Amino acid sequence: MQIDWRRDNSLTNFFFNCSSCDIESRITIENFLDNELQKILNVKAEKLNDAIKKGIIKFFEFHGHPALQFRKGIGKIEDGTVIYFRDKIEVIRGFPKIRRTLMLHPTLKNHFNDEIVVEEKMNGYNVRIVSIGDEIVALTRRGYMCPYTTRKAVEILDLSPFFNDYPDYVICGEMVGTENPYVSHYYEEIGNLGFRVFDIRKKVTNEPLSIKKKHKILEEYNLPGVRVFGSFKVDEAAEKVKELIKEIGEDRREGVVMKDPIMEISPLKYTSSRAHDDEIFYAFTYPFDFGKDFFFSRVVREGFQAYEMKEGEEELQKRAQRLGESILFSMISTIKNVASGNQATEDMVIDVENEEEAEEFIQYLHNLGVYAVVHKIKGNKAVIRRIHQATTDKVNNLLNGGLY
Amino acid sequence: MQIDWRRDNSLTNFFFNCSSCDIESRITIENFLDNELQKILNVKAEKLNDAIKKGIIKFFEFHGHPALQFRKGIGKIEDGTVIYFRDKIEVIRGFPKIRRTLMLHPTLKNHFNDEIVVEEKMNGYNVRIVSIGDEIVALTRRGYMCPYTTRKAVEILDLSPFFNDYPDYVICGEMVGTENPYVSHYYEEIGNLGFRVFDIRKKVTNEPLSIKKKHKILEEYNLPGVRVFGSFKVDEAAEKVKELIKEIGEDRREGVVMKDPIMEISPLKYTSSRAHDDEIFYAFTYPFDFGKDFFFSRVVREGFQAYEMKEGEEELQKRAQRLGESILFSMISTIKNVASGNQATEDMVIDVENEEEAEEFIQYLHNLGVYAVVHKIKGNKAVIRRIHQATTDKVNNLLNGGLY
Repeated sequence: MQIDWRRDNSLTNFFFNCSSCDIESRITIENFLDNELQKILNVKAEKLNDAIKKGIIKFFEFHGHPALQFRKGIGKIEDGTVIYFRDKIEVIRGFPKIRRTLMLHPTLKNHFNDEIVVEEKMNGYNVRIVSIGDEIVALTRRGYMCPYTTRKAVEILDLSPFFNDYPDYVICGEMVGTENPYVSHYYEEIGNLGFRVFDIRKKVTNEPLSIKKKHKILEEYNLPGVRVFGSFKVDEAAEKVKELIKEIGEDRREGVVMKDPIMEISPLKYTSSRAHDDEIFYAFTYPFDFGKDFFFSRVVREGFQAYEMKEGEEELQKRAQRLGESILFSMISTIKNVASGNQATEDMVIDVENEEEAEEFIQYLHNLGVYAVVHKIKGNKAVIRRIHQATTDKVNNLLNGGLY
Repeated sequence: MQIDWRRDNSLTNFFFNCSSCDIESRITIENFLDNELQKILNVKAEKLNDAIKKGIIKFFEFHGHPALQFRKGIGKIEDGTVIYFRDKIEVIRGFPKIRRTLMLHPTLKNHFNDEIVVEEKMNGYNVRIVSIGDEIVALTRRGYMCPYTTRKAVEILDLSPFFNDYPDYVICGEMVGTENPYVSHYYEEIGNLGFRVFDIRKKVTNEPLSIKKKHKILEEYNLPGVRVFGSFKVDEAAEKVKELIKEIGEDRREGVVMKDPIMEISPLKYTSSRAHDDEIFYAFTYPFDFGKDFFFSRVVREGFQAYEMKEGEEELQKRAQRLGESILFSMISTIKNVASGNQATEDMVIDVENEEEAEEFIQYLHNLGVYAVVHKIKGNKAVIRRIHQATTDKVNNLLNGGLY
């Protein structure tokens, strides 16, 4: 069946051509949900229908074809799931949330079986790369097709051989480096922009390959995986990760993801003190644009880590100093900046062929509700300036005598 | 009129005896709201009725008489307002929220006229003392009659002469000192328990006396007022308060309230860095029992204060160190404590004549939904132990491998 998408009545009707019987038909969305989608997703039609009414499932057009985006999780279907209606219905499940432990001991022992594989958690943004029809697209965590990421993924990686052989697989990984419009972080081995695979999953089921199988495929197709720190017995893993996380922090790297070798148990993540501080510094650079949860959760991580590391007086004082400075120095710098008449802005460099590509990315951000402008273009580097309006406005208001 | 309170139909009917016509009558609450309350409060009957339905206005019985408590503000009537139905209807308005400035300059100049009186803001709890019928009662901020505060207020202060002359006035002040079940803070000049008046207001209108008139009455009736740091011209006030707040902080005191001498402009408050840190320390001792707002707002205060104080590198580092330690050291101490099998508890000492008084206070806390026990009694000192259940449970859960 090929769906003929008419925007005007998107929420109530689908028009489609059946490729086998060659008849143009029309199906109401209720019937479509009843007949098709609930079978594929194993979610009841009423739930899906309700989610559409509430705007949790959003219809959009992608390259002339209809598609659905899940803005929240529904049943077992994750937030960020995207469904494309092409010659066949392609379900790209959202990347499952990786839960965090605040204590390595006893959590690792409780949660996993015999063995734990420890991979690096890198500080970038989560990307799913998939093949849809004859295109390869890169989806952000929330399920948006990012034009920059899509272009760069194809540039950085030779993906066609893999997708020719495995069209039903999804490559899940982190886009990292400094020329990255979401999370800019310098990695020695990456430089400007790089991609590291952490999972290969199946399209409809979201089932991940075992770590062994993943590595075999990555090697075969010459795709770069995230760093693997090793495989440890569950009894010794907590101590190993404790040592590791200190080294990782000293290198200003983020943390680890701990996995069941056969990927039957859900992975867990754990992060370095340095990463907490860096995120707190970032959040307090734009304090009124970030949720209060963001800040609280990172501070709580520091408390439990300091406890588990059994830190002495001096180490604790250093941790406290770093934490306090991350909060205060970032905020004071923004207050000074706004007091001088500037806005609270954030510059990100992306690599573009021409001005149009930069503008296309800006348009994409605007569609997401993010206010940004092309600040300048020099050669093939475009500086994208994101304006943190809430922080700019609130700091200005408080500086001018606004009450709190 | 004397209302005959029947609990069974409290929300729909009032039974009352008219003292002039001597007839027992019944009035529905709707009529009562229409006829009486909306006139007194200048709030529309529908609004009052709606608030009763939503539980925002709560009926309760006080010493055999009906009463109303406003759990949220309605129109101009403040949260914490209490209305007693005795021989006459007594309206005790909630204490108005004092707004905070994060910047002394230019806020003081913008907000006030020529002159500003700077009073001390003490670290205790807000109490309104009133005369109702033949009783003197002390109300907490939210409008509860606290038995301990009521007993102590009458013990500490000789209030009868004042209330004989001014039955329609409300004494607003801070209950401070170490033997205080809400906010225990040591003040050299207070010791165990003391009361300091900051406002005298009129019952129904909430209109405050001018500062001059307040001091005159306080002197006349020998009632202790909060410390007055002075009266300053609006142009020089910001600099004066900046100096003051540093000294106040060094003495580990809380802050200041800045007032219009004739009390026509609403007062503003401003607090010391030390006070922010102390509150953050307290909040992170029970991190899962406090709102995330609590923490965020205090940190933001620190940022603006550091900016306005134009602090140098070294001062900023010290401020950051104190902030970081307030967050981390408190939290780690609680984690250690819970890891040792204890609960996250808070001990408060109150002064009692006998065990019954301690139990009465515990009962009062239970009615408010606060879980506390009498930990021990020695002489006339009772140790009240408050249990912070959310923190105890959550820390235990995380220590035992709970995911975050």
